[in-house]
Amino acid sequence: MATVRLWTDDQVQKDPAVKAVFDDIRHVRGSDFVNNFWRALANDATTLKRTWESLKVIMGGDGPLDPLTRELIYIAVSAANGCSYCIHSHTAAAKQKGMTAAQHMLAIVGMASETNNLVNAMQVPVDREFLVGE
Amino acid sequence: MATVRLWTDDQVQKDPAVKAVFDDIRHVRGSDFVNNFWRALANDATTLKRTWESLKVIMGGDGPLDPLTRELIYIAVSAANGCSYCIHSHTAAAKQKGMTAAQHMLAIVGMASETNNLVNAMQVPVDREFLVGE
Amino acid sequence: MATVRLWTDDQVQKDPAVKAVFDDIRHVRGSDFVNNFWRALANDATTLKRTWESLKVIMGGDGPLDPLTRELIYIAVSAANGCSYCIHSHTAAAKQKGMTAAQHMLAIVGMASETNNLVNAMQVPVDREFLVGE
Amino acid sequence: MATVRLWTDDQVQKDPAVKAVFDDIRHVRGSDFVNNFWRALANDATTLKRTWESLKVIMGGDGPLDPLTRELIYIAVSAANGCSYCIHSHTAAAKQKGMTAAQHMLAIVGMASETNNLVNAMQVPVDREFLVGE
Amino acid sequence: MATVRLWTDDQVQKDPAVKAVFDDIRHVRGSDFVNNFWRALANDATTLKRTWESLKVIMGGDGPLDPLTRELIYIAVSAANGCSYCIHSHTAAAKQKGMTAAQHMLAIVGMASETNNLVNAMQVPVDREFLVGE
Amino acid sequence: MATVRLWTDDQVQKDPAVKAVFDDIRHVRGSDFVNNFWRALANDATTLKRTWESLKVIMGGDGPLDPLTRELIYIAVSAANGCSYCIHSHTAAAKQKGMTAAQHMLAIVGMASETNNLVNAMQVPVDREFLVGE
Repeated sequence: MATVRLWTDDQVQKDPAVKAVFDDIRHVRGSDFVNNFWRALANDATTLKRTWESLKVIMGGDGPLDPLTRELIYIAVSAANGCSYCIHSHTAAAKQKGMTAAQHMLAIVGMASETNNLVNAMQVPVDREFLVGE
Repeated sequence: MATVRLWTDDQVQKDPAVKAVFDDIRHVRGSDFVNNFWRALANDATTLKRTWESLKVIMGGDGPLDPLTRELIYIAVSAANGCSYCIHSHTAAAKQKGMTAAQHMLAIVGMASETNNLVNAMQVPVDREFLVGE
Repeated sequence: MATVRLWTDDQVQKDPAVKAVFDDIRHVRGSDFVNNFWRALANDATTLKRTWESLKVIMGGDGPLDPLTRELIYIAVSAANGCSYCIHSHTAAAKQKGMTAAQHMLAIVGMASETNNLVNAMQVPVDREFLVGE
Repeated sequence: MATVRLWTDDQVQKDPAVKAVFDDIRHVRGSDFVNNFWRALANDATTLKRTWESLKVIMGGDGPLDPLTRELIYIAVSAANGCSYCIHSHTAAAKQKGMTAAQHMLAIVGMASETNNLVNAMQVPVDREFLVGE
Repeated sequence: MATVRLWTDDQVQKDPAVKAVFDDIRHVRGSDFVNNFWRALANDATTLKRTWESLKVIMGGDGPLDPLTRELIYIAVSAANGCSYCIHSHTAAAKQKGMTAAQHMLAIVGMASETNNLVNAMQVPVDREFLVGE
Repeated sequence: MATVRLWTDDQVQKDPAVKAVFDDIRHVRGSDFVNNFWRALANDATTLKRTWESLKVIMGGDGPLDPLTRELIYIAVSAANGCSYCIHSHTAAAKQKGMTAAQHMLAIVGMASETNNLVNAMQVPVDREFLVGE
């Protein structure tokens, strides 16, 4: 259960600033469905707009990474941060974009976390070779 | 400074189990350089071998993700976990593999961490739509 | 579901050390309601007492930060640590203390987490200017 | 050592998009000093601009929380996330804004992290009372 | 709800590679019950086999730490990482192995997390004395 | 470099509340060496005293876990939390107490972190069998 109100479509209609963002989400995604993350953020129109504008560019705009790879990176970070909602919502997005490499990504996430902790526990110093030329 | 001994090549030569893994690392990578992570793990030949065998398959074997994308996911998880050594070593690996999308990946990592925390702080419930069909 | 027993009031009554802490919680808070955190800690009277004595001083005692600001900091840390229970319980406490700045705090938590991860991913060195004069 | 180039002022001068952000940072802060975080982000003008615009509003704009309280929350989250650079830079900012409550904030950060982990380890269920009325 | 399919015993029977691992889990544990973690990993037979082989050695093989101490360390890390499933499954395993020190371990986990964060927030430098002789 | 002053012995001598704690640390440990953690905490005599009293009981008092096992759990949590200082100081303490199982503990820490992240990424639901009888 959220600690903030989740805005219904009726409530959204009455707030022009929130409505403008919701309209853009629906337009960009080509779908009427707006998930709870945005309904929770609607309590603060400034953060709602800023977050959507950023996400639209980073996940949907042009760039060297294809949309599906972006989702895999998003899921990997969300798993490391333990954000259940984010894993569910971005796994759904990745499936829509044709994800077939989920299992491979999982293996990398698991392996990275294991070696991250081994390195931490042993406090391995960075090799000089990794610091050259920057 | 490490909390464990970092094995020199001389020390590695005297332990057949450790030497076998170091030989394979050099062979697979086509380079004489073996970084500190493996020199720290050498204190426990079983974990050394298990970790190398796993990493060899996950990061270097066949699979639906290309080698560079694997490194990007590895760096993203390491950043989320705050592992300085891992970020340095896998950024070096990604540069060798021709990374040009570092900045884009960074933006995704930053954005994912921001929304992960917003979701956590508001305890947003998972939408029913994300749970359908599994 | 907890991995430990949650003590009922009947069970609390029969253990003088636990009862003493529960009595003080009720007295200090001016309410009969004792939340599950304390009912779980009751399995270890020493940790129960130590935790309550510390929390009473830090969150309720005198100090340069007002009670509501303390709750905001508590929620921010709990969000970063992904502790769902703690976010719920301290959001409830903050609402009782008149929280009106929840959305602003959320934006800071999100922003801090984003820049934390950007800094980690790029391994930005600390500026000399930040180290002067300590 | 950073994994990306830290832009010098000379390099900044030659890139109009980066220069515009650096000029604004200097103007808003009333100081010529631009710290390494921005010099690292300069490698990606879009993320640089987006991050600065967000930070300017959240940490410097109007809002229900005073500037010092915002810094305390920022430091608390950075400590929980273990971001050394961020702790240094925002502690410097907080000192400039007259921080006197550092020790109190530290005690809250420590206490919150302790109870976060106790709750996690025992998997304490959220009390019904915390879910009423939302 | 999982983001991947949880394999039923019927589905396991039809995949020899998965069946071989499930058979070994049942044989080693002396029980027909195979928990959801393995049913989720079954979607990737390579990761399933690798994870089980590693876990079998680390948690069940010979070594200087007794089986119960291993479980306590496992739970402690899982609490620090906030993994609810892992805490539940390894607490169940620890109870089977006769855990009586749960409360003491909890106190250590809480205390360690508190001092970890205090140290982070103050950026305490490592004493020279701790670096001698390695 | 710390963000707070590290108290010298001269400064400690002039503050009776701080001096009392430092005297007790030296007495309990049977050594004149007081590490930087306490010199940083000395800026807040209340937190200094509370932290030392708690640590003394949890790490040094009676209990079902022997002193060395306590240190192993402490190091494991510190590795999961990425606290470099804590890993160094408690590894030093564990070595003093005769640690021989460091490598085994490392393997558990690494394995736990890997499976924690696999479970998170797949959102594995808790088995009913783990919830029975509590």
